[in-house]
Amino acid sequence: MTEEDDVVSPLHLTAEDRPDQPPVTAGLKDLYRDFEKALMVPLWTRIGDLMPGQPRSKAQPHLWEWKALIDLAARSGDLVPVGRGGERRAIALANPSLGGRPYATPTLWAAIQYLMPGEDAPEHRHTQNAFRFVVEGEGVWTVVEGDPVPMRRGDFLPQPGMNWHAHHNSASEPMAWIDGLDIPFQYDIEAQFFDFGRDELTEEEHATPDRSRSERLWGHPGLLPVSQLGHKEGTPLLCYRWADTDAALTDQLELEREGRPGTVGPGHALVRYTNPTTAGDVLPTIRAQFHRLVPGAETAPRRETGSSVYQVFDGSGRVTVGDFSWPVRRGDLFVVPSWQPLSIRSEASPSDSESGSLDLFQFSDAPLFSKLNLFRTHIEENA
Amino acid sequence: MTEEDDVVSPLHLTAEDRPDQPPVTAGLKDLYRDFEKALMVPLWTRIGDLMPGQPRSKAQPHLWEWKALIDLAARSGDLVPVGRGGERRAIALANPSLGGRPYATPTLWAAIQYLMPGEDAPEHRHTQNAFRFVVEGEGVWTVVEGDPVPMRRGDFLPQPGMNWHAHHNSASEPMAWIDGLDIPFQYDIEAQFFDFGRDELTEEEHATPDRSRSERLWGHPGLLPVSQLGHKEGTPLLCYRWADTDAALTDQLELEREGRPGTVGPGHALVRYTNPTTAGDVLPTIRAQFHRLVPGAETAPRRETGSSVYQVFDGSGRVTVGDFSWPVRRGDLFVVPSWQPLSIRSEASPSDSESGSLDLFQFSDAPLFSKLNLFRTHIEENA
Amino acid sequence: MTEEDDVVSPLHLTAEDRPDQPPVTAGLKDLYRDFEKALMVPLWTRIGDLMPGQPRSKAQPHLWEWKALIDLAARSGDLVPVGRGGERRAIALANPSLGGRPYATPTLWAAIQYLMPGEDAPEHRHTQNAFRFVVEGEGVWTVVEGDPVPMRRGDFLPQPGMNWHAHHNSASEPMAWIDGLDIPFQYDIEAQFFDFGRDELTEEEHATPDRSRSERLWGHPGLLPVSQLGHKEGTPLLCYRWADTDAALTDQLELEREGRPGTVGPGHALVRYTNPTTAGDVLPTIRAQFHRLVPGAETAPRRETGSSVYQVFDGSGRVTVGDFSWPVRRGDLFVVPSWQPLSIRSEASPSDSESGSLDLFQFSDAPLFSKLNLFRTHIEENA
Amino acid sequence: MTEEDDVVSPLHLTAEDRPDQPPVTAGLKDLYRDFEKALMVPLWTRIGDLMPGQPRSKAQPHLWEWKALIDLAARSGDLVPVGRGGERRAIALANPSLGGRPYATPTLWAAIQYLMPGEDAPEHRHTQNAFRFVVEGEGVWTVVEGDPVPMRRGDFLPQPGMNWHAHHNSASEPMAWIDGLDIPFQYDIEAQFFDFGRDELTEEEHATPDRSRSERLWGHPGLLPVSQLGHKEGTPLLCYRWADTDAALTDQLELEREGRPGTVGPGHALVRYTNPTTAGDVLPTIRAQFHRLVPGAETAPRRETGSSVYQVFDGSGRVTVGDFSWPVRRGDLFVVPSWQPLSIRSEASPSDSESGSLDLFQFSDAPLFSKLNLFRTHIEENA
Repeated sequence: MTEEDDVVSPLHLTAEDRPDQPPVTAGLKDLYRDFEKALMVPLWTRIGDLMPGQPRSKAQPHLWEWKALIDLAARSGDLVPVGRGGERRAIALANPSLGGRPYATPTLWAAIQYLMPGEDAPEHRHTQNAFRFVVEGEGVWTVVEGDPVPMRRGDFLPQPGMNWHAHHNSASEPMAWIDGLDIPFQYDIEAQFFDFGRDELTEEEHATPDRSRSERLWGHPGLLPVSQLGHKEGTPLLCYRWADTDAALTDQLELEREGRPGTVGPGHALVRYTNPTTAGDVLPTIRAQFHRLVPGAETAPRRETGSSVYQVFDGSGRVTVGDFSWPVRRGDLFVVPSWQPLSIRSEASPSDSESGSLDLFQFSDAPLFSKLNLFRTHIEENA
Repeated sequence: MTEEDDVVSPLHLTAEDRPDQPPVTAGLKDLYRDFEKALMVPLWTRIGDLMPGQPRSKAQPHLWEWKALIDLAARSGDLVPVGRGGERRAIALANPSLGGRPYATPTLWAAIQYLMPGEDAPEHRHTQNAFRFVVEGEGVWTVVEGDPVPMRRGDFLPQPGMNWHAHHNSASEPMAWIDGLDIPFQYDIEAQFFDFGRDELTEEEHATPDRSRSERLWGHPGLLPVSQLGHKEGTPLLCYRWADTDAALTDQLELEREGRPGTVGPGHALVRYTNPTTAGDVLPTIRAQFHRLVPGAETAPRRETGSSVYQVFDGSGRVTVGDFSWPVRRGDLFVVPSWQPLSIRSEASPSDSESGSLDLFQFSDAPLFSKLNLFRTHIEENA
Repeated sequence: MTEEDDVVSPLHLTAEDRPDQPPVTAGLKDLYRDFEKALMVPLWTRIGDLMPGQPRSKAQPHLWEWKALIDLAARSGDLVPVGRGGERRAIALANPSLGGRPYATPTLWAAIQYLMPGEDAPEHRHTQNAFRFVVEGEGVWTVVEGDPVPMRRGDFLPQPGMNWHAHHNSASEPMAWIDGLDIPFQYDIEAQFFDFGRDELTEEEHATPDRSRSERLWGHPGLLPVSQLGHKEGTPLLCYRWADTDAALTDQLELEREGRPGTVGPGHALVRYTNPTTAGDVLPTIRAQFHRLVPGAETAPRRETGSSVYQVFDGSGRVTVGDFSWPVRRGDLFVVPSWQPLSIRSEASPSDSESGSLDLFQFSDAPLFSKLNLFRTHIEENA
Repeated sequence: MTEEDDVVSPLHLTAEDRPDQPPVTAGLKDLYRDFEKALMVPLWTRIGDLMPGQPRSKAQPHLWEWKALIDLAARSGDLVPVGRGGERRAIALANPSLGGRPYATPTLWAAIQYLMPGEDAPEHRHTQNAFRFVVEGEGVWTVVEGDPVPMRRGDFLPQPGMNWHAHHNSASEPMAWIDGLDIPFQYDIEAQFFDFGRDELTEEEHATPDRSRSERLWGHPGLLPVSQLGHKEGTPLLCYRWADTDAALTDQLELEREGRPGTVGPGHALVRYTNPTTAGDVLPTIRAQFHRLVPGAETAPRRETGSSVYQVFDGSGRVTVGDFSWPVRRGDLFVVPSWQPLSIRSEASPSDSESGSLDLFQFSDAPLFSKLNLFRTHIEENA
């Protein structure tokens, strides 16, 4: 159902359009006019759009090149101040099939955020669940519930709904990163609350510690702090460091080389970020994962209900989503709509990869599907 | 954010419109043009719409009178056949603020369905969760996974996603009822699968038992059939009979008269339909409840995240939702959008009520909010 | 490991006893003596007892005839007052293999309780989970948290831990029933707390309503009272009426006759009592179920981890547990120890059954096993 | 109820013993004799023992000095072979109040296990949940489901029920460690199954890797391997390394020094070992935790339902449990019975601590209490 289709009256349907429709008699026309007056719409004229045999994505596959994004973000740094009202110097990816809305997919927001040296982004909180992922640079601390959390290349920083947060750039260089949120989803279901916080960070919040308090409490594998076990407000672990993610991926690939289980497919390591207090997805509405493909690996086309956004973290390769296919390299972002088949191939001889492989960060709306008994996947065998 | 607003370029914003926006210089105009080319949208021009202080409902409160609905449905009965392709003679309520879409609220579908004597609605299944509620009449059996379930006034019949189902009218009169589904929600998140079933029901499925097999297995209070405890596919109890609902409401009000806990407010009984295998909401995405207000009772204005549709089952009174207020009587359907305050007042001396009270059936999208840590309510105290 | 075996020193083991033991040299004897002094016990001398290949039940199968129990209980009614200190006129079944302890099985207490006309049993509460089941008679109300609950033939009345409770006999006849508790289990793990309540019931608590407040709130199938959904202290439904249990069993057997799923085996209906707020077992440590076998039905021998106590409610037949076998009739109680095979055969032409079948009430410690990943069953195919 | 008390007949009770008992008439004596014949025991003569006001521990507080344990274990190394039948060279702590049974507490087994250079302990599996904790030494690998896991000072190694396991000592020195299991609990409830495995380890299983495969898959904080998420058989993380535990404790104490939450009491850090797939206790029946007290710290007396065993890992101090009090040092093991108050004081100037503090490993049966709604704690304020 496109936006235009939404306002097509059943009066304009003809037998050619819809062979399964009743013959358009004068009586039927009257009935359809009376339906419109009564604010009623018959199912039989719309069922194919509303209830298709399988998901038809409103969004389309699309790729944004990192170079373009970072250049435009940098220009914003010069022209657009950060402060109360606008709140953040963030620029969203607008899927070309979603009518100009700032939505990467029907449920997910993805943006590049940019903070100049010495700048603060003011404190606020909202029901929208968020995270940050850093593809390059460092120098910014996100301050969550008063706890300054450093952000560096490869770090994943979840931000559960209704946590107070601000950011400060304490370095001499600008810094960019990506934000992911469930803004479109919460806009659709109308769940949003938003509160402005204090306009200024305290001296203590301007600190630049190497590790957050959150990590010191919650960042030890399998070990939980007994004093904090009553914690209930979303994940308490506010940073997943790159060194840990890198080690987990490396271990999976080594296990595969030893002939042991570990990878999800040949040459394909995959870890999921989880909330240490539940072992479930890191945010109530967002799944976040990290993929590594060894040189020359290729994944079988795989469909999944729900939509994803990927960012290439390292290396290069080729990505195919439904009818689209693009070469990709560091920083590029692309969208995989619901039920569109995705396959990824890594460069056989990457010259641009620290890990020697193709590394991708992924986030999706999979928890919606899992929690509501709607999750499905399908791998195409003979692709 | 209206549909129109969706396509407003930040280029057209002026300082008057948005005092918190940066001054519109030539450089900024260039930047905004380049954003558009790059399929990017700045947050700072849109944050107020996307992340409001509290939910702003896209839907509006609206009332459909039952008499109009049933008359139009009856006309459809004469003009529109039921069969494969159109699948059902169902006509949806289209909220006047949702652009002609057949949506009662942003997440919920509500329709009147109509079946003529001797008609069958063909078998299909879909991921959309559904239910039927009967405000008047009888004579139709809904056949779920081969089990014929009779439908009569006051009965609530859940239909979990991917259950095969058909209907047959075995009476000499037409019958109407309402259908509720999560069609808009599944359309938004793109979760839908749909399969056509057999075109004809068997003789066995055309049976007209007084009770379904489902009720015989699962309809005994607190008593579960050990042989079926592995059941996992949505609620196995396919009918909640009116006699039980009526008794539960009567009991709550009698307890209140004895000075005991039971009601949710003075003269206000409320029961929730639940899945006997989980004790949770009867469908993964839909909450269903039944209210009874004694004559002259009035509820305090109450806000809730998420949207509801109500149908008056019996009695009469007045309903106020935000800025809207209507008298209501048997069969009328009305919409309560997210976070709009609702209050209900029952007629002091109802002449038209079997129970002597105002009885209302309600369904909502509350499970989405509960499962995703987004549920909130607020009761206005001094209203 | 019998009680005697507990105190056998490894010094007394000989090579004949234990061919897998080390040769008993002077050095070994010294070592074993020094172990004893140091309060140490070697695993290798005890592993066979402590860690057997499969459970070896300390309890033995045993049958108590109802006639003997009721006669002795009646004599107690004349000789033993009910009051504070002794608390209840309850006489426990003492398994002949458990050293005179008042334990039916290693984890379960089963007793006959007896209350004379006009008597009250004083109020108390305890962490032990309890229930009452009525095989015959009526006239007693159990008063739980101030709510008088009538007790009649066939009713099952759970009593979650730490609910205040008392009983009163308001009839002109004595009444007997069985109590089941987890006294031995809580004694073993040392979880017990006990508080005395008020010595006298109020006039209101002496009431004799036909239904408890609990049933009026929680006894409607699939319908929960929204005002009470925060309830967390064990099951809120304090009575499962015989009429409902009987109907559920009848329905399962009718479904079987129609060729539909429903029974657990040929001619064998089985329902489980569950907590309506969780859909799980009715008590945290006790599972309660009700069986009905049509005339001439016989169950395949079945083993289950954990122990059960059964009471024949109606009809007659023969029960085999391991090496024991008894004819059974109304009121008889028998014990099935852990992992002992049980089979039940109903009389082909029962003259003494209201339902025409063999009806049995069962309770067990299965929730311990289910919650701790220890539950196993095995059905012997060629028995 | 002591063991002796178990066999006291109510016939021997006198009015002096039990003022709340009925007068001992000839009729009552007859009744009590007939109870005995009928295998029945009246509650009123036993209620005080069976249902005390609060838990009365059958076990007593006791301390075993490490030096004595290790010396006796070493003597066993010379005299007792390890092999099929005896299975393990493990010597259990026998609580002095538990009648010579090899039980540290009513539910928990604690033993020292000892393996000579070059020895293998043969493969088996059992329903009993187990773990190993290493207070000193290294050189042994425990081989779990074919995965060799190194054991070194400070490591905690859980062993979920029904995992195949064996051990091999590949070093030139003997090694000792402690084993904890739920043997007494499973003996009481009769849940035990035990299977012998292969008599010989393969060459691959004799490997001596620095890290287990388990740790490589599951040992990364908050990061789960997507390929293994279906894992259901107890915790898949088979080793919690000392370096992580030490860092977590150090972090908590540093946070306390900064005025931040983290410790459970002044100078008292506490971490819990958890299953990364559930965030719950590391084993279904056993909780494991690690405490660190800074020099001079003292905990308030604290009661908890259920029993614990502690081992001093480092440093020295004084421990008080109920009426018992002992100085403690590295390796000492002590028992805290149910509901007995425990307080721990660390040496003000420890000369013998690597961390500068008093470090203690603890395991308990708390999951039983938590899962069955029986867990309680109480801290004495004015102690």
